[in-house]
Amino acid sequence: MVETVKWTPDGVVMIDQTKLPRTVEFVTCRTYQEVADAIRTMVVRGAPAIGVSAAMGVALGVLQTPPERLAAEFPRICETLASTRPTAVNLFWAISRMKRLYASLDGSPPERLRQAFVEEALRVYEEDIAINRAIGRHGAPLVPDGKSVLTHCNAGALATAGYGTALGVIRAAVEAGKKVHVFADETRPFLQGARLTVWELQQDGIPVTLITDNMAGHFLKSGRIGCVIVGADRIARNGDTANKIGTYSVAVLARENNVPFYVAAPVSTLDLSLESGGRIPIEERAAGEVTHVFGVPVAPEGTAVANPAFDVTPSRYVTAIITEKGVARPPYEESLAAFARGE
Amino acid sequence: MVETVKWTPDGVVMIDQTKLPRTVEFVTCRTYQEVADAIRTMVVRGAPAIGVSAAMGVALGVLQTPPERLAAEFPRICETLASTRPTAVNLFWAISRMKRLYASLDGSPPERLRQAFVEEALRVYEEDIAINRAIGRHGAPLVPDGKSVLTHCNAGALATAGYGTALGVIRAAVEAGKKVHVFADETRPFLQGARLTVWELQQDGIPVTLITDNMAGHFLKSGRIGCVIVGADRIARNGDTANKIGTYSVAVLARENNVPFYVAAPVSTLDLSLESGGRIPIEERAAGEVTHVFGVPVAPEGTAVANPAFDVTPSRYVTAIITEKGVARPPYEESLAAFARGE
Repeated sequence: MVETVKWTPDGVVMIDQTKLPRTVEFVTCRTYQEVADAIRTMVVRGAPAIGVSAAMGVALGVLQTPPERLAAEFPRICETLASTRPTAVNLFWAISRMKRLYASLDGSPPERLRQAFVEEALRVYEEDIAINRAIGRHGAPLVPDGKSVLTHCNAGALATAGYGTALGVIRAAVEAGKKVHVFADETRPFLQGARLTVWELQQDGIPVTLITDNMAGHFLKSGRIGCVIVGADRIARNGDTANKIGTYSVAVLARENNVPFYVAAPVSTLDLSLESGGRIPIEERAAGEVTHVFGVPVAPEGTAVANPAFDVTPSRYVTAIITEKGVARPPYEESLAAFARGE
Repeated sequence: MVETVKWTPDGVVMIDQTKLPRTVEFVTCRTYQEVADAIRTMVVRGAPAIGVSAAMGVALGVLQTPPERLAAEFPRICETLASTRPTAVNLFWAISRMKRLYASLDGSPPERLRQAFVEEALRVYEEDIAINRAIGRHGAPLVPDGKSVLTHCNAGALATAGYGTALGVIRAAVEAGKKVHVFADETRPFLQGARLTVWELQQDGIPVTLITDNMAGHFLKSGRIGCVIVGADRIARNGDTANKIGTYSVAVLARENNVPFYVAAPVSTLDLSLESGGRIPIEERAAGEVTHVFGVPVAPEGTAVANPAFDVTPSRYVTAIITEKGVARPPYEESLAAFARGE
C-alpha cells in the first residue's frame, strides 16, 4: 500500500502528489515550515492527510525548537501550519489536538514533552488508518454489486494516512467480494482523479475508467452508475458538505437521475460550529492551475480565471454520510451530532 | 473577424483549431480528402463550420475530378466527407444539398457544373454568416443586461463561417449596448472553451472568465449567471439536443438553479427524422484526448478511458431554441416543425 505520509527519524516523508503518476518521488520535510509548504503546494492533499501532516508538523516544530524558546515559538508553529489552506477542517482539528496536548503537558521536562508530541502525531496517523477501515466497513454494504461507482477527486489512500475514505468504502466492498467498477472524474484543474485515483486503483487491481468531469452527468443518466461516493473537506452541522470543486454538480446530477450520493469522511471532518455550509471558507487558488497543465499553456495569455478549489453541496442532495461511527442519515443535525458526541 | 474557413483559388483555407491559441496557423486543403481529414482531426470543428467545410469539400472534389469520371467519383466524394464525424447533422445536411445540386445539373457541361458547385459552396458559406446574424438578432433580447452568461465549448465564429451561434447571440447583445460578462467552461477534453472561446472573445473585447467544467454548477448556484447559451450539433423533433459533452450537465444545473438555458442553432441543425434524442449517434473519440493534454500525459499509462464527444440534453431542460427564423419555445414538436417548414 502506498505510504502517503510517514514519520521517520529524518523528518516527515511524503510521496510528492504534484508529480504523480509521472514519477514516484518522496519528499522529506525536516522542519515544520517545510511541512507547511508541502501542504500549501499540495505535495500532500486530502483533508485527512492534511490533518495527519499538520500533527506531524507540530511535532517536528516541537523537536526543532530549543526548550527554552518553545513557549514563544509554539503559537507560531501552529499558526504557520493553520494558515496553509482554509477549507479542510481536519487541519484545524489536528492543530487543536496538538494545542490541547501542549496545554496538558505544561511544566513537563523537555524530553517528556518531545516524546509526547511524537507519540501523539503517530497516534493521529494510526487512528486515521483505523478510522478509514471503519468507514469502509460501514460503507461497503451501500455499494451495489456488479455496477459502477462514480467518484470525484481523490479520497483514497493518498488523501489519508492510508486506505482512504471514499476509496476505502470501495476497497472494503471489493474485499467483501463485490464486483465494483469505478468511474473516476479527472477533476480539473489539479487532476487528482486522473493522476491519483486512477493510479491508486490500478495498483489494487480495481477496474477504473477515467472520464472528464463533464462526462459524469452523461454516465449518471446512462443507468450504469449504482452510486456516487466522495470525500469531504468540511461538513456543517446540517450536513452541507464542502468538497473538491465539482462535487456539487455531481450531487445534483446524481439526484436528478435517482442515483444515491454518499459522502465518506471521518468525524474529524465535522464542523459543528457552523450551522450550514454557507459560511465554510472556500479557498481560491492560483490562475495558473487552470491556464496551464503540467506547465503547458491551454488558454491565451492574460486569460482571467476563477479557481475556487471547493464547492458546497447542500445536504438535501446527500443520501448519507459514512463515518467511522456509522452511517448518518437525514436529519443530519441529529445523526451527526450523535456521532460527534461519540454515540 | 477571424476567418474560420474560406474558399480560395488554392483550395479551402482553414485556421488550424488544434493549434489555437498557441499559434495562429492556416491550413490549405487542396483536395476533398484533405478537407475530410481536417474535419476528422478537428482542424475545423463546430457543427455549422463542419457543414460549410463539407460543402466546400464536395466542390473541391468536383473540381479535382476529370469530368468523365465524376459520375463514378461523386458518391465517393460525398461518402468520404460524410464518414468523418457522426453527430453533427449539418455535415449531412450540407452534403445532401450538394447531392441535390448534382442531380439538378444532370447533363450540364463540365464548366457549368464546376461553376455551379463553387457558387453553391460559397452560398452555404455566406448564408451561414447571415443565419448567425439573424440568430443573434433573435437571441439578443433574451440576454440579461449586467449579468454573466455561461457558455460551454465554442459555438462562436470559429464554429461557424463567422459571428457564431451562441457567441453570436452574445455579440448581438453587446452590439445592442448590453453589458455582458461571459463565463467560459474550458470544455475538456479538447479545451474548445479555454482555447477558442476565450481567444475569440478577447479579440472582441468582451470580458470573459475561464472556468473548469466542474465549476459551472458552483457559479450557477451563486446567482451571478443570468442565462446559459450553448450551440448544438443535432436537435431532434422534440427539441432534445446533442451538443458537446457536458452540455447535459450544465442544463440540469441551470434548471436546478432557475437559470434559463438556451440553445442557439441554425434550422439546418434540426433532424426532424428523429422523434427524440435517444437515437442521435454519439461519437466516441480516441482515449489520448483524455489521457494527454497537448501531448503531455495526465494519467498513468494503460488507463482505460471513456470519451463520448457529445451528450444529449432532454428538451425539458431547454428554455428556448434560438434559430434564424425566431425563438422556438415548447412544445418543440410544433415550434421547430413550423420553422423547418419556413414559417
